[in-house]
Amino acid sequence: MSNHEAIGFIDSGVGGLTVIKEALRQLPNERLIYLGDTARCPYGPRPGEQVIQFTWEMTHFLLEKNIKMLVIACNTATAVALDEIKAKLDIPVVGVILPGTRAALKATENNRIGVIGTAGTIKSHAYEAALKRKAPNTIITSLACPKFVPIVESNESHSSVAKKVVSETLGQLQLKKLDTLILGCTHYPILRPLIQNVMGSKVKLIDSGAETVSEVSMLLDYFDIANSPQFKNEPNDFFTTGSAKMFKAIADDWLKQEAINVQQIKLSPFED
Amino acid sequence: MSNHEAIGFIDSGVGGLTVIKEALRQLPNERLIYLGDTARCPYGPRPGEQVIQFTWEMTHFLLEKNIKMLVIACNTATAVALDEIKAKLDIPVVGVILPGTRAALKATENNRIGVIGTAGTIKSHAYEAALKRKAPNTIITSLACPKFVPIVESNESHSSVAKKVVSETLGQLQLKKLDTLILGCTHYPILRPLIQNVMGSKVKLIDSGAETVSEVSMLLDYFDIANSPQFKNEPNDFFTTGSAKMFKAIADDWLKQEAINVQQIKLSPFED
Repeated sequence: MSNHEAIGFIDSGVGGLTVIKEALRQLPNERLIYLGDTARCPYGPRPGEQVIQFTWEMTHFLLEKNIKMLVIACNTATAVALDEIKAKLDIPVVGVILPGTRAALKATENNRIGVIGTAGTIKSHAYEAALKRKAPNTIITSLACPKFVPIVESNESHSSVAKKVVSETLGQLQLKKLDTLILGCTHYPILRPLIQNVMGSKVKLIDSGAETVSEVSMLLDYFDIANSPQFKNEPNDFFTTGSAKMFKAIADDWLKQEAINVQQIKLSPFED
Repeated sequence: MSNHEAIGFIDSGVGGLTVIKEALRQLPNERLIYLGDTARCPYGPRPGEQVIQFTWEMTHFLLEKNIKMLVIACNTATAVALDEIKAKLDIPVVGVILPGTRAALKATENNRIGVIGTAGTIKSHAYEAALKRKAPNTIITSLACPKFVPIVESNESHSSVAKKVVSETLGQLQLKKLDTLILGCTHYPILRPLIQNVMGSKVKLIDSGAETVSEVSMLLDYFDIANSPQFKNEPNDFFTTGSAKMFKAIADDWLKQEAINVQQIKLSPFED
């Protein structure tokens, strides 16, 4: 492993691009490789065992690229697979749940925190457990939003359907007196304006992307594997198991970078 | 090592209390043990080899207390001893220089960063190396301020002498167009109002304490060694090799906590 190798990011689809956006800002010296398993997205409704298997397949694809650090930029995968993958790899592995938890506890003033995520993430109780461990008096309201990821993946986040679905799904949170809402799925920041509109301008929305990238930045220093600007020669790479064209349309719209290179790939089943 | 053990902090004297202040705020569930080598302070003018030896002596004193993490809350010791101590211990070890560097690069807008520190820290070029590695275009002005630590250690930071010394020492920085000044010694935040006054209100002063504690918080999560609130039973402990009374006077003034328990101890020479 060398300081000049890339940082790998995996997600069930395009959601992890919200983490990439922050990484492009905070870590301009680093080369990034992203893999979205769009063909099998959403992960949210899948059984935990299957999510673990898919996450390992993505992980092995990126290990072949000699990544120096792995970011599981997917809450569903973090909830069920982070501990196992972190224990088995000899590179640092970062998930998105603890950073989101830290950011929410920093932001809340009334200790009423909401968590929205996929069915898998909400069922795992990963956010609740992490919040309760740090701050037992927190009052937590969790809500699965299974319709959000398909909207984002089909590039319909600007549509009137999106507006209607977000409004209907989150309406029940309005009476909970939340002052902080964790966007517990990396796809959700793409729906942020709609979510903010339903929740009201006073509710702080926690996008774990920024906090996750701060953790990555710190770990690059801690393990002394940060890259130097003069060695950033190769471009960032984006891979998807689904349509490269659809992925690129969403990535272009979200990241607003020139020349994003997206390749479609096939993942191989991995036997442990 | 258990999640319920304390985090250890070491410094040449009372300077690391500026990091403790932030730790008390950000990590209310953690038990803290602090050791200041006041009897042999200042470290700044001492040869590097001696600083390394003293730092090992402090480290071994705290290892006897079963600390789960070590914070070298002293820039002089971080500059010369961090790499060696981090490589040899099997608990996480955190210094104050990289956190200060990250915070300064976040804060600067004109890329003109000043660094003030002890003679030892400035001579080590540790800040310059870290800043240049991350952002080669940074224009850095470094200045040793050997008179600052003795003022703080003798509890004269509110005196007219302090005002005069700070003004005379930092006067030469005023023409450098700095927008950010790293307080590259954990004693210096105690002189912050005087320093801000000389530098002008527009210059951002970087106290690495807050950023260091954020790193500690993240590493507690990363290594899964954070304490839970219900297990914080024992009080924080403060040790000094100098006068407990003088230490307590400064700690009371700075931390504004009730009932700070300070004990004087003797450090034993350590043979590697």
